[in-house]
Amino acid sequence: MQVTPVKTEKITVQNRDLFAILDKYVPSLKEKSVVAISSKIVAISEGRVVRLDEAIKADLVAREADYILPPEHSKYNYTLTIKENILIPAAGIDESNGDGYYILWPRNAQKTANELRAYFRQRFSLHEVGIVITDSKTTPLRLGTTGVALAHSGFRALNDYRSQPDIFGRNMKVTVSNIMEALAAAAVLTMGEGSEQTPLAIIEDIPHIQFRQADPSQDELAEIHIEPEDDLYAPLLAGVPWVRGKKTKD
Amino acid sequence: MQVTPVKTEKITVQNRDLFAILDKYVPSLKEKSVVAISSKIVAISEGRVVRLDEAIKADLVAREADYILPPEHSKYNYTLTIKENILIPAAGIDESNGDGYYILWPRNAQKTANELRAYFRQRFSLHEVGIVITDSKTTPLRLGTTGVALAHSGFRALNDYRSQPDIFGRNMKVTVSNIMEALAAAAVLTMGEGSEQTPLAIIEDIPHIQFRQADPSQDELAEIHIEPEDDLYAPLLAGVPWVRGKKTKD
Repeated sequence: MQVTPVKTEKITVQNRDLFAILDKYVPSLKEKSVVAISSKIVAISEGRVVRLDEAIKADLVAREADYILPPEHSKYNYTLTIKENILIPAAGIDESNGDGYYILWPRNAQKTANELRAYFRQRFSLHEVGIVITDSKTTPLRLGTTGVALAHSGFRALNDYRSQPDIFGRNMKVTVSNIMEALAAAAVLTMGEGSEQTPLAIIEDIPHIQFRQADPSQDELAEIHIEPEDDLYAPLLAGVPWVRGKKTKD
Repeated sequence: MQVTPVKTEKITVQNRDLFAILDKYVPSLKEKSVVAISSKIVAISEGRVVRLDEAIKADLVAREADYILPPEHSKYNYTLTIKENILIPAAGIDESNGDGYYILWPRNAQKTANELRAYFRQRFSLHEVGIVITDSKTTPLRLGTTGVALAHSGFRALNDYRSQPDIFGRNMKVTVSNIMEALAAAAVLTMGEGSEQTPLAIIEDIPHIQFRQADPSQDELAEIHIEPEDDLYAPLLAGVPWVRGKKTKD
């Protein structure tokens, strides 16, 4: 597997045409590639930004989050939220590399992923191409972030080993690999999180991936839906008093 | 970045000399490579296995875990545990690819990682080489596993952006990338989790990694120590009644 970060010009509120950026900085693409794209540049391209001096971050978080752990309950240095089934501080709102703006999460990362897949297929006459839109998350009890996928398109998120035989011919019981999440982690490692200006990465020669030629749906993440009784984190998530965010249309 | 899985013969309780396996299947290695090694083959090489018919899994879990969420508290399909600061079902004990044995976690993954680093440095006359020992973990609210690092050696686990300027010259506030964890995720994706028989992967051309020539310590994971007030998961971990495991020497 090869993961190649792509350096671009600065992407700002004034310079935010995502397809123009891709036209310029992705001059070719092979069959069976996955293009990783930072959620930040997707959000900027959608205009999902708010000037730092025009909003109070706590208000933005309350508007953006699906669930919030009330700050009065917390003695922690962040606001814990759940948004789009991802545990993320401050509903994913970030100021780094924002040039004076809060950057929100994309309005509809799945729709953008599907459009980007169609764009690459058409532009390079490809059959099988994948998209993953990435951000960062943390791991319990460990300092540091790794990549997380907000959406994917053009390939199966999971590699399901259940009912397949193991090396010794016994059936595997519970193993399902999250290919999508691992591609995000690998891509974000190469993209960096500072001033590298590499918001894209091209991933090639990916083992164990199943591309799909059929048109993706608006709900590709349904594939990774997990029942609480199978979710290692469910008892932990159930143990704190979440409140709903005040979602508004924008 | 290139990630190349390495196919080996079957590694079993009867065929478990890790260095003989590496002698045979890793014929060369470049400067600044990281070798990823499945915790399962490290554990087998250490004899950390128990025949399925000679133990009750719940007893093994109680002995191996640092903390357990008592099963009577749980309506879930697994036993939630914490071991070596990793949230993992059943203290990491696994039967898949075990050939009739429960495979426990390695006795001392850090020690093995340091020994493997010294072995590769000497064998190939290298200055900078890294090791990461991998297993799998899950993500909240999502089906599917990705790689996790049990130990690393020869490089910094983190790439610390705190106090570095972002693209627009503003200081980054909180971003620290966990390079170690991302390498584990990328490696485990290529190694697979079924019958692929690829318990090793070689990672080359890694951006943003800082190798270390100094001898590693027995506590390299101190680098990723996190204070609860900075850990997104701390309020969740604090909300359930953990009990201590009954750790015995073995």
